[in-house]
Amino acid sequence: MRAVDIIIKKREDLELTSEELKEFLDGYLKGDVTDYQMSAFLMAVFLNGLSDNELKVLTETMRNSGDLIHLEGVTRFLIDKHSTGGVGDKTSIALAPLLSTFGIGTAKMSGKGLGHTGGTLDKFEAIPGFKFPESEAEMVNSIEHSGIGIMGQTDDIVPLDKKLYALRDVTGTVDSYPLIASSIMSKKLAVRSDGIILDVKVGDGAFMKTLENAQKLANIMRDIGTMFERKVHIVLSGMEQPLGNAIGNGLEVYEAVESLKGNGPKDFEELITTITGIALVQKGVVKTVEEGIEKAVAKLHSGEAVTALRDFVADCHGDASYIEQPEKFLTAQFKYELKADADGCISQLKAESVGTAGMLLGAGRETKEDVIDYAVGIVLEKKVGDIVSKGDTLAVLHYNKENDKFKQAVELLNSAYQISNDKVEQPKVILDIQ
Amino acid sequence: MRAVDIIIKKREDLELTSEELKEFLDGYLKGDVTDYQMSAFLMAVFLNGLSDNELKVLTETMRNSGDLIHLEGVTRFLIDKHSTGGVGDKTSIALAPLLSTFGIGTAKMSGKGLGHTGGTLDKFEAIPGFKFPESEAEMVNSIEHSGIGIMGQTDDIVPLDKKLYALRDVTGTVDSYPLIASSIMSKKLAVRSDGIILDVKVGDGAFMKTLENAQKLANIMRDIGTMFERKVHIVLSGMEQPLGNAIGNGLEVYEAVESLKGNGPKDFEELITTITGIALVQKGVVKTVEEGIEKAVAKLHSGEAVTALRDFVADCHGDASYIEQPEKFLTAQFKYELKADADGCISQLKAESVGTAGMLLGAGRETKEDVIDYAVGIVLEKKVGDIVSKGDTLAVLHYNKENDKFKQAVELLNSAYQISNDKVEQPKVILDIQ
Repeated sequence: MRAVDIIIKKREDLELTSEELKEFLDGYLKGDVTDYQMSAFLMAVFLNGLSDNELKVLTETMRNSGDLIHLEGVTRFLIDKHSTGGVGDKTSIALAPLLSTFGIGTAKMSGKGLGHTGGTLDKFEAIPGFKFPESEAEMVNSIEHSGIGIMGQTDDIVPLDKKLYALRDVTGTVDSYPLIASSIMSKKLAVRSDGIILDVKVGDGAFMKTLENAQKLANIMRDIGTMFERKVHIVLSGMEQPLGNAIGNGLEVYEAVESLKGNGPKDFEELITTITGIALVQKGVVKTVEEGIEKAVAKLHSGEAVTALRDFVADCHGDASYIEQPEKFLTAQFKYELKADADGCISQLKAESVGTAGMLLGAGRETKEDVIDYAVGIVLEKKVGDIVSKGDTLAVLHYNKENDKFKQAVELLNSAYQISNDKVEQPKVILDIQ
Repeated sequence: MRAVDIIIKKREDLELTSEELKEFLDGYLKGDVTDYQMSAFLMAVFLNGLSDNELKVLTETMRNSGDLIHLEGVTRFLIDKHSTGGVGDKTSIALAPLLSTFGIGTAKMSGKGLGHTGGTLDKFEAIPGFKFPESEAEMVNSIEHSGIGIMGQTDDIVPLDKKLYALRDVTGTVDSYPLIASSIMSKKLAVRSDGIILDVKVGDGAFMKTLENAQKLANIMRDIGTMFERKVHIVLSGMEQPLGNAIGNGLEVYEAVESLKGNGPKDFEELITTITGIALVQKGVVKTVEEGIEKAVAKLHSGEAVTALRDFVADCHGDASYIEQPEKFLTAQFKYELKADADGCISQLKAESVGTAGMLLGAGRETKEDVIDYAVGIVLEKKVGDIVSKGDTLAVLHYNKENDKFKQAVELLNSAYQISNDKVEQPKVILDIQ
């Protein structure tokens, strides 16, 4: 079938056969199908959707377009946790060591961030000398030793997704549920794991702004997992306000380490113990998530997990003293305290504005070329539901340059806070577990 | 606004402002907007449609993308007749000379054909030496002298349409009503005319297979005409079976010349006299189309129009003796008579199959590179509604090569005819005038 006829079939909302879709995708990888044909096809998919079988074939073809990470030699039970991303999301940094204390390994690929703060990769790079495992062999060693296997994304894994994403980014076809779901899942399926846990963020600071939309994405991802016979659990978690208190790369590692000693923010602690509880169910250690959470909370307060993180950092040539004395991350030259301008209760703290304020300080990238300042960021002292008096410190900005962008950041952060006369409940972190 | 944001706006079915759409289209012409962005946009347009204002801006931007043909110095009332194309459609060749006898000039651009038989350009080129006017000055002289101004399409007129069409052709976005309508109308609007008559063909051998679809296209084209304050009339004409009896380039010119002497097939005569009747209304010579048709029929039977055609051909360096003795076109080496295999009434004569049979003989192009044989084609002796006896000649194939394609053509032509026991009415040619 000619490429144009496959596009027309999709345009007419008719289901493509497995062979037709595979031929079209393989043709694109080989260069027989052009970018302009693929972008027309993607727009038709955006507007007409994909059938279950089309979704499966797309995901499978993407996964098989590059190397598969078999992780031969790994003996640990392996979890791949994925978050759809949000402001202050340092989950992986704390979760992987916590899982490790239960003998569970983490196997995941991680990327650099664009916008807001950096990605997990950027956050770890706040540690001097740190370099992610680059080969599968290094990753296997790392998982067996510290329990933590986090690898930078390479061009060799799921190259079709990389090529399609670059095209979607410039042709207005990013926010398609089946395309997002198959992009995420193809990467999960390319790496060996025994359980997949998807943390789908919902709210102002997340890609999915409403619970309904997040649920829709979650359902498609679970369907894909089922098609490929993988254990998939989904956590829907709130992202109206930032997760935890720290936003900024070094500051977030600091907060993750403190959390592993039981000194972290309650919302963040709830999220990592919940995900750990799910992982323990997947491994068969406990019957219910609640039992698993109980075990995780106990482990957190023992401080044991810090050791796994320190080992991982040392294995990755990082300066492990930063994990032992995390206050070493606090090196920004200046601090600015944002004060409450009224008495009342914090009724809103817009995550996206806080993220953008962090980026303006230098914690994130506006363009791919921007260089991150690992020391800068924001530490929130008050969050939604907290009672404040006029003059109380709401948040502290850590910064190195007193420039226009700093002033913008202060204004933006100030506007992110709403103070109301009425008492407002603390928002839930865990909205649903499925 | 960034190109990607304009695509997203269209994707979300929001109306673009005039400035946004113009910026996007101009950006494409300049190369700032890429082919893959345009093809995603076109697919969004295909699936979400265009508002009236978007349609106007698209048409206007296409028209203004190249040279405008002002035809300065032309004193005649000018008609631009356009047909959406069908099998055996030699209308322009007979219509322009007929209009000329009423002092009306024809100003239109014409293209080469792909599939079926050739385009108007190919048909005229069946006359040895014939070369279309290439400059506006030549066209003005031709209109003033013979009344006929038909010009080959050039890259300088409406280049944006050419660029968009090439992209639509390979990305499955050809059959979009607003895109077809604005493509046709931008070319009409680029050439000066006092009246536009659109002949929208309906049926098996036409682009529009149903009256409903043809009506939809016609309405959009008339709306565009109204926006640009042009007089537009629309004829919806039947194309279930071929128009007239001749299919093939030289054979069609032959039939057109014979028609100008009053010896043509009834259906073809009805179409050209009807369009002439409309043109006479547009010029203000008559009040009703019926009055105009009466005048046209009388003129046809006077044979006067042949002179205008002969003058045009001579002005275009063609051998005018072919118009004086049109039997000169009948030069194919072989003839084959297709016979009826049963008694009855012709109930169907599928235009598309007849057109494809003609192409197989060499009358049309399968690919752009194919060379047309001007002598070959098909002359129908029986059409829908005719009573036949077994052994009667249904059609005569004129051909030069007794090859496999010839055999396929015979089979295809045979299968195009259906003979029924019941009496079937002759189909109407003029379905509606608007």
